[in-house]
Amino acid sequence: MELLVVRDRRIDYDGSAIRSHWAYRNFGILGNSLVVFRGRCNVRVEEMIDIEDLRAKKEIRSDDMVHYIVEVFDVPNVLLASALQKLFVARLCEVLGEYGIKTSRKGDDIYVNGKKLSISIATVSPVSIKIHIGINVEAKGIPEGIEATGLRELGINDVEEFMERTGRALVEEFEKVKRDSLKVRWAG
Amino acid sequence: MELLVVRDRRIDYDGSAIRSHWAYRNFGILGNSLVVFRGRCNVRVEEMIDIEDLRAKKEIRSDDMVHYIVEVFDVPNVLLASALQKLFVARLCEVLGEYGIKTSRKGDDIYVNGKKLSISIATVSPVSIKIHIGINVEAKGIPEGIEATGLRELGINDVEEFMERTGRALVEEFEKVKRDSLKVRWAG
Amino acid sequence: MELLVVRDRRIDYDGSAIRSHWAYRNFGILGNSLVVFRGRCNVRVEEMIDIEDLRAKKEIRSDDMVHYIVEVFDVPNVLLASALQKLFVARLCEVLGEYGIKTSRKGDDIYVNGKKLSISIATVSPVSIKIHIGINVEAKGIPEGIEATGLRELGINDVEEFMERTGRALVEEFEKVKRDSLKVRWAG
Amino acid sequence: MELLVVRDRRIDYDGSAIRSHWAYRNFGILGNSLVVFRGRCNVRVEEMIDIEDLRAKKEIRSDDMVHYIVEVFDVPNVLLASALQKLFVARLCEVLGEYGIKTSRKGDDIYVNGKKLSISIATVSPVSIKIHIGINVEAKGIPEGIEATGLRELGINDVEEFMERTGRALVEEFEKVKRDSLKVRWAG
Amino acid sequence: MELLVVRDRRIDYDGSAIRSHWAYRNFGILGNSLVVFRGRCNVRVEEMIDIEDLRAKKEIRSDDMVHYIVEVFDVPNVLLASALQKLFVARLCEVLGEYGIKTSRKGDDIYVNGKKLSISIATVSPVSIKIHIGINVEAKGIPEGIEATGLRELGINDVEEFMERTGRALVEEFEKVKRDSLKVRWAG
Amino acid sequence: MELLVVRDRRIDYDGSAIRSHWAYRNFGILGNSLVVFRGRCNVRVEEMIDIEDLRAKKEIRSDDMVHYIVEVFDVPNVLLASALQKLFVARLCEVLGEYGIKTSRKGDDIYVNGKKLSISIATVSPVSIKIHIGINVEAKGIPEGIEATGLRELGINDVEEFMERTGRALVEEFEKVKRDSLKVRWAG
Repeated sequence: MELLVVRDRRIDYDGSAIRSHWAYRNFGILGNSLVVFRGRCNVRVEEMIDIEDLRAKKEIRSDDMVHYIVEVFDVPNVLLASALQKLFVARLCEVLGEYGIKTSRKGDDIYVNGKKLSISIATVSPVSIKIHIGINVEAKGIPEGIEATGLRELGINDVEEFMERTGRALVEEFEKVKRDSLKVRWAG
Repeated sequence: MELLVVRDRRIDYDGSAIRSHWAYRNFGILGNSLVVFRGRCNVRVEEMIDIEDLRAKKEIRSDDMVHYIVEVFDVPNVLLASALQKLFVARLCEVLGEYGIKTSRKGDDIYVNGKKLSISIATVSPVSIKIHIGINVEAKGIPEGIEATGLRELGINDVEEFMERTGRALVEEFEKVKRDSLKVRWAG
Repeated sequence: MELLVVRDRRIDYDGSAIRSHWAYRNFGILGNSLVVFRGRCNVRVEEMIDIEDLRAKKEIRSDDMVHYIVEVFDVPNVLLASALQKLFVARLCEVLGEYGIKTSRKGDDIYVNGKKLSISIATVSPVSIKIHIGINVEAKGIPEGIEATGLRELGINDVEEFMERTGRALVEEFEKVKRDSLKVRWAG
Repeated sequence: MELLVVRDRRIDYDGSAIRSHWAYRNFGILGNSLVVFRGRCNVRVEEMIDIEDLRAKKEIRSDDMVHYIVEVFDVPNVLLASALQKLFVARLCEVLGEYGIKTSRKGDDIYVNGKKLSISIATVSPVSIKIHIGINVEAKGIPEGIEATGLRELGINDVEEFMERTGRALVEEFEKVKRDSLKVRWAG
Repeated sequence: MELLVVRDRRIDYDGSAIRSHWAYRNFGILGNSLVVFRGRCNVRVEEMIDIEDLRAKKEIRSDDMVHYIVEVFDVPNVLLASALQKLFVARLCEVLGEYGIKTSRKGDDIYVNGKKLSISIATVSPVSIKIHIGINVEAKGIPEGIEATGLRELGINDVEEFMERTGRALVEEFEKVKRDSLKVRWAG
Repeated sequence: MELLVVRDRRIDYDGSAIRSHWAYRNFGILGNSLVVFRGRCNVRVEEMIDIEDLRAKKEIRSDDMVHYIVEVFDVPNVLLASALQKLFVARLCEVLGEYGIKTSRKGDDIYVNGKKLSISIATVSPVSIKIHIGINVEAKGIPEGIEATGLRELGINDVEEFMERTGRALVEEFEKVKRDSLKVRWAG
């Protein structure tokens, strides 16, 4: 899994990055990839993936987020998409723990002291698994009624270092998952 | 995913429980399942799944362990097996955190203060995913050269309650993974 | 497989219900489902699934039908879609037999005394199998040149009871198929 | 699907025909096949596929049966195996109906007047789907406690004609399933 | 795999033939197929499959080409699509060798004396593998900057005979691939 | 795909190298691999993969061969196994062409002047694709009735250089197949 941390510019997330080959089309990265970038979040209705959100006409917004876009081509299966997503979110919680932040994970959501830190979605295209995770840098521009928090509120001010560190952690996690899948004989 | 916590008796783990349909053959449980039980661990060479262990002629033993045997029939794929395994181990760490124990996860291994608490393997049969996780109750009967710890050393004495609580946590995690995989539209 | 029999209102079938997640979008039903409803049938050309019909510019219409929409997420494969469809149609024939009606099945079509009682299509989306079966309540509004019949002509006047009974029969059939698939060891 | 009706000799069924490539090994038939033959049935414990039977230590025997061995290489999936099996059994009931025999199908079992006419199993090998259906020619040599019937009791004396006719009916059913799976566009 | 060599008319290739079921929609051919035809080539941007070409805003054109459109429904997997494509291109080189032409294959491209003779793309739809190969009849109308050659330049003037001969060769190659896949037992 | 050319010793091929994870068990190579080695060939009956050979009780022997063992974990499908095998054999013919040797390929067999140069088999394990190709160094120890040839007869005396060069060519071919499969958008 190739890692790209976009440092030199902001990229806003409107949901279209969830489509297949986004990393290849935009950055020329072939195959499994994780692109980490920073920017606004405002998901257009026609790009919404979670039908629960669509049915509830939820808004998905934040003024400043760290975004993770994962694409895995090996097995375009929704159950693997959903399992990898939870594992990546759990790994992010572990890294936040290294920063001294105590998190509570509920499936694919990260909470700190009851406040929502992140959003996430996982799905498939006909050729790949796609996962988006977004972590608030500041809890601004969040839809009403959601108590949110952000990295700054939690004392993480070097956002770029956080992007780098979490990016490496997620790629290492995936590589471990992949490697272990290759070193076991099948059971009868 | 059906949960069975075996409370009334000990079951030793010799590796054969990793085969497909073990839960159905032994307990009549059909479909996805998690069986939690307690007993010795001594994996026979012919049941070893990790070829790295086989090559190194490692011993896999412990006098007293809590064992988790997972079987998932949906998609018999090694990458999903490996991802689910890491997610389950991460979830166990989170539950240990609720007990006030600070863990460090390295892939599918749990460490506390640099001491190994657990073993695990994940693979496929031609019809299912199989995962075994074992957690030392006491660090006895461990192969030489491994610094190990156990639940008792960490202050968890009500092993049955631990089996129950972790069993429920893992089943809920899987159900969340499954449910989320069904509520997302596919991406283009 | 969850069963929903829509009793309180009519729903017209224009072909769009064949898309993935229709039951979740419209009724909040997650996972495998069968929705039984009653209404007109008039399939819009852009929703036609059978390319043979498209090539022949066939019309697919009926003024009053009982509709069955099946979605199965387990294995989005066209051969399974087509096999399940034929099995469901065969099961409907068996239930009609319990009403004393002698049917003749030709693949996915039901005939009574040489007259067409039903229409059906089975396909896949990138995440699921989708099947539509429609049974005429009355042979009205049928395209010219087709000799058709309907439930009323065959003496079945309690349409709601028929919807209920057939709905349960199809769900039971699927559950049996699923359950049996889990209790067999693999062959060498 | 190639059809072979073995007319010139009896073949006893001990369960080993359920393994992959049986038709190719024994008759040189490559690819999807249905072999219909006649002979005793006495399934050896080590060849039993149904773990429910294994757990109950059931005997599976009959002195004289028509046997159908199906192998389908397209998609080695247990759900498709189980769905095709039920469809084939439903089709056999329809053909029996053409002989004037009123059957009652329960999943993969055929009953006539409450008496069991058939046995069946469906599973996968790592490369194919395998289905066995056996129909009693006479209800002799059946395990105690099972009320059984056979073709002769039902007035079907030309067993060879029955083998031919049902063989053709099952192959036609499969070909229809396959053909229909190829003529539909995918849904969104 | 059914072969159709279109002799009675020219068909221009604008890229839309790469969609699923093109052969069934246009020629009524069900299942795996190879359609060989002759015509211009000018791929519209919205039909471009190779994202590398899209990113580079390449033009894909030629005034006169022999086109091969392959569709294989068995396993809609991109790796198989890409492997079959290379095999078909290698087979075309072998046939050109029978004409006395020495080719050099680079992946899916055919060169003669350093000049490009062909273009090709392979991908999947949600239900099938699709491959396009185009061979210049004359090196006219080729995008600037590409040194190209064509069948006529190489001394092949009976284009129809070439279409016939290569069409048969590719179908035979696929049938051999398929047949061999059915006659091997699985390995442990 | 990792390449290992075994230069320091001979390894005899008895057929057991066709099993899954052979490269990992013996050389510690994880994931997709090609191992090239040299040694006798004498396939034990219980290791024979081609059921046609088994049925004909063929002998598979040669006193001195270059062996290629490929393992691909991505998609354990027999059609891909068989397609990759033909592509690899075609590639070997192209490399032999670079040596000035004119070959004739028939599926997975290489002939030179009507004499057989090679043997090959392709199959799957439950987790991978496995391919064996063997090329005679000298036509000695070949079963009676087969007209064979070998590298030495064809003027290739530097066998080690041949192993190296063909090994690199096959790995490059696979990498091209893989890379191209990742850079194409899916078709509708």
